[in-house]
Amino acid sequence: MSKENNSNSVGIVETQFFTFDKLELESGREIAPVTIAYETYGTLNEDKSNAIFILHALSGSAHAAGYNSPDEKSPGWWDIYIGPGRAFDTEKYFIISSNTIGGCNGSTGPATINPSTGVQYGLDFPIVTICDMVKAQRRLMEHFGITKLLAAAGGSMGGMQSLAWSILYPEMVHSVLAIATAARLSAQGIAFHEVGRQAIINDPNWSRGKYYGHQIPGAGLSLARMIAHITYLSEQNMHERFGRKFQENDPDAFSFKTEYMVESYLHHQGDKFVDRFDANSYLYITRAIDLFDLSSGYGSLIPAFEKVKANYLVISFTSDWLYTSSMSRDIVQALRGNGKNVVYTNIETDKGHDSFLIDNALLQKNISNFLRRQYDEISWKNDGA
Amino acid sequence: MSKENNSNSVGIVETQFFTFDKLELESGREIAPVTIAYETYGTLNEDKSNAIFILHALSGSAHAAGYNSPDEKSPGWWDIYIGPGRAFDTEKYFIISSNTIGGCNGSTGPATINPSTGVQYGLDFPIVTICDMVKAQRRLMEHFGITKLLAAAGGSMGGMQSLAWSILYPEMVHSVLAIATAARLSAQGIAFHEVGRQAIINDPNWSRGKYYGHQIPGAGLSLARMIAHITYLSEQNMHERFGRKFQENDPDAFSFKTEYMVESYLHHQGDKFVDRFDANSYLYITRAIDLFDLSSGYGSLIPAFEKVKANYLVISFTSDWLYTSSMSRDIVQALRGNGKNVVYTNIETDKGHDSFLIDNALLQKNISNFLRRQYDEISWKNDGA
Repeated sequence: MSKENNSNSVGIVETQFFTFDKLELESGREIAPVTIAYETYGTLNEDKSNAIFILHALSGSAHAAGYNSPDEKSPGWWDIYIGPGRAFDTEKYFIISSNTIGGCNGSTGPATINPSTGVQYGLDFPIVTICDMVKAQRRLMEHFGITKLLAAAGGSMGGMQSLAWSILYPEMVHSVLAIATAARLSAQGIAFHEVGRQAIINDPNWSRGKYYGHQIPGAGLSLARMIAHITYLSEQNMHERFGRKFQENDPDAFSFKTEYMVESYLHHQGDKFVDRFDANSYLYITRAIDLFDLSSGYGSLIPAFEKVKANYLVISFTSDWLYTSSMSRDIVQALRGNGKNVVYTNIETDKGHDSFLIDNALLQKNISNFLRRQYDEISWKNDGA
Repeated sequence: MSKENNSNSVGIVETQFFTFDKLELESGREIAPVTIAYETYGTLNEDKSNAIFILHALSGSAHAAGYNSPDEKSPGWWDIYIGPGRAFDTEKYFIISSNTIGGCNGSTGPATINPSTGVQYGLDFPIVTICDMVKAQRRLMEHFGITKLLAAAGGSMGGMQSLAWSILYPEMVHSVLAIATAARLSAQGIAFHEVGRQAIINDPNWSRGKYYGHQIPGAGLSLARMIAHITYLSEQNMHERFGRKFQENDPDAFSFKTEYMVESYLHHQGDKFVDRFDANSYLYITRAIDLFDLSSGYGSLIPAFEKVKANYLVISFTSDWLYTSSMSRDIVQALRGNGKNVVYTNIETDKGHDSFLIDNALLQKNISNFLRRQYDEISWKNDGA
């Protein structure tokens, strides 16, 4: 079946760009101008009530579904969940997916030319936060003339953004899907980010971020990704996939050249990443995640959710040790402590944090059922009005 | 109280050296000559029945207890557990503690001069295994004229060695203390070792291991240690010790210069390590741990333990996610499947893998009670003979 004719796929999509004058940041600094790379799938209905904002994780991009060209080998990062008849059903919903600021897939980030110097920002790019990312997304929403999202949905860092949407703009989000995420990163999560950043900074090609046009800090970025990938899989899953097997059938075990399968897997993931991601963006985005703490300024999580108006779907995965089920339960308890509407599911799986990116029948069902109810609710209200 | 007069301390001790002609390795290669750095605490009794071999973990040394000089700031790495009246009671037992081959604290390793070239071995040093380490320890035991150890005892990699002692030399070990260890490293454990090795290899100062006399790959070794330290603490413990607190009271959160406490802690651990450990030894010893698999050649763990004669004390810690309780239970089940004598304790703590190195009343009691029973058993047998 060709990519264009695959009835479950959104088919060929084009990444588009929206530029606005400037964005004031939480730090007090600003970025000007700001470009946001985005894709859309499905059709915005007449009363603009069927829009869902999809929010990507650390290394994601605007390209969440379909193919950017007939030659593209793999579809967008959440293609399994986005398409006609899929969980995010493009026959019913209008999906917007954008690259975050600070990223490196079309949106303004450290690899963008700084208009005031004429060269790439590098470390002159300001520190951005999860809330800054959401503020930029709001500008894109307004660009479409949408005043209220049916849903803000994402996993991991995307889930942090979806939660932030509902706190920053309570009137603009009918529902939130927060998957494999947390209201704040754990000390262990910060620790893993820091060793990843250190791997990049240790690479002599990093040159304090001024490597554009020169050799990139590929070894450092690859190592950062290898470290991160360990945290994306569960121990159990690693055991089942790789165990203690060697990459070759008849290895000389007494040599550093010989690789266990798990080592080859990590090196492969590291190598692939270098081709598609910018090392400075890795520094900025991990830092944004570190700084995220919904309770900050509120003292605790309960008052943080006091004024939200959305309905929530919170999903965790039992074997996720980076964004644990217990972190999801903290969110659920704080929401319920405020009498808010929450559906919570802890999905049993051994696939670890990566579970939100791979095909999972329960995740599909939870998302599609929740969205259907949200859409019916909005349609019913609109009919009644 | 001075170090010499502290009644619970073994006081000032001197590291000694034992050199023998050669060691044939599992790989078929050999090391010649071999020097082993060791320390002893307590007095060997007349019938040489009170000897305990203490086996160190990845980054340990022969210096397990007391002080090498009156100026030394910290005592040996297991001083909490070794001394007069302590778990390894030096008033009753004769303790031998040696640095493993491949190490960098006095025993022959990659930083040793290779007699056939006149320069340091570097990567010409042969790959060594946990069993090779034990074979070298046996030579040291024989040097003392000891034919049977009262106990072989260690945590983590030391626990692997203690288990290997009982399989390689069933007649020579009366008992085994295997603490926070496993019969084989998990795929996740191999993965963490590999990213640590990669951090060293990525450091341009590493120079394929030929850095002796030049600048050392300090940044890489420090990063390897930082990564490892994350795995030594539990998430809960990291949360309690550091949480999301910044190192400074009034930080500029919007800067890469600002550090969370957990980042400072890891950097401090990394920096300290560079002063005392050799990067090539880190490569060799992590590889030895990767290669360790007691079931290798037996098909499974049960036949591996078929011929052992020792009594076992197996101890795990509930929050240890590197050497999990479940890995200890695998050892216990395989031993019991052979009808062997095993005492197993899973100690409740949030301190993670590092628990075996820090003061824990239950660990103290378990070790001292177990050793007392072993000693009584041997004494009773000897009296009866």
